[in-house]
Amino acid sequence: MTTRREQTSTESRELILTAAAQLFAEKGYRQTTFIDVAERSGISRGSIPWHFGNKEGLLLAVLEHSVEMVRAGLAEVPEEVEDGLARFEEGFSALFARPTTKLFVTLLVEALEPGSPIHGRYVEIHNTLRDHWKRWLERLPLPPGLTAEALAVTIVGAGIGIHQQWLLAPERVDAEQALAALRAMTAGLLSAG
Amino acid sequence: MTTRREQTSTESRELILTAAAQLFAEKGYRQTTFIDVAERSGISRGSIPWHFGNKEGLLLAVLEHSVEMVRAGLAEVPEEVEDGLARFEEGFSALFARPTTKLFVTLLVEALEPGSPIHGRYVEIHNTLRDHWKRWLERLPLPPGLTAEALAVTIVGAGIGIHQQWLLAPERVDAEQALAALRAMTAGLLSAG
Repeated sequence: MTTRREQTSTESRELILTAAAQLFAEKGYRQTTFIDVAERSGISRGSIPWHFGNKEGLLLAVLEHSVEMVRAGLAEVPEEVEDGLARFEEGFSALFARPTTKLFVTLLVEALEPGSPIHGRYVEIHNTLRDHWKRWLERLPLPPGLTAEALAVTIVGAGIGIHQQWLLAPERVDAEQALAALRAMTAGLLSAG
Repeated sequence: MTTRREQTSTESRELILTAAAQLFAEKGYRQTTFIDVAERSGISRGSIPWHFGNKEGLLLAVLEHSVEMVRAGLAEVPEEVEDGLARFEEGFSALFARPTTKLFVTLLVEALEPGSPIHGRYVEIHNTLRDHWKRWLERLPLPPGLTAEALAVTIVGAGIGIHQQWLLAPERVDAEQALAALRAMTAGLLSAG
């Protein structure tokens, strides 16, 4: 049985994580302070280190949460495929439509810094994403000379790069249209295979 | 006539810029110190602020230099196109093969930080790159429902994202193979148009 105290602690932790994830996506990791997180979550500033240690601990916890969401999104794509290409496109749209994708792309900025505490975790997440697309692509007819591995790097890369252009200049970049173009490019290539 | 003093000053400036560009690409901007730049360039540490003011000034100068190289690469694509698709693919390979592309992708980390001094410059550079691809794509037969604008975002995005995956895990990601896949996707789409 969960005690009242435990329930409150779990709730506080979730509220802090949600607020931090929003703020990291909006302002970036470096610009976000414990005071910002306390104001957004409604949890006292002093509770944050009790739950997460320091700011790096909070970053790692937010990232783990984001990874779980990305993994859950991948698991939703059905294992058995009748019409491979149509399902591929559906799974694709679903992944990029998720709000966690934005956070994921924003935190990549931190992961690319040499010596970053989240570097290793991002290498793993990128591998998970590439492996996911690779498994799907391996079932589909590819044109000669192209590997599922190479296409997986391109598809994951396009998703990342489209979002980064949009983050830099949201008024100039239509991310939805660009993702539709990526789906059409993938479909065109696979139907030619 | 250029005096000996002016010549030496221009040479020193170039040596510092080249060393800083290498170090920013290798270690990241934040981790690079004036001492690192002095050691790599062979120019005394005290000369660096004389040429560039502070570290932010050096970053802006390196970025301008990188932009000039990217622009020069774009200008090399011929204006008159007989076989549009073949020339498009050539121009594409040339741009991504440039060493400046790596620096450009590494400095994007800095540009994405809110309040970054190079944010505005990156918005402009991304626009230049997208406009370049857009002008080419507008001459070619596109499938119905797809705009040259949307495809330009996807192509520039794929280039950025492929390089970032490679920067994170160079031993796991074959950037050359992924760029070949991107070229094939673009070619497949245009031939279907």
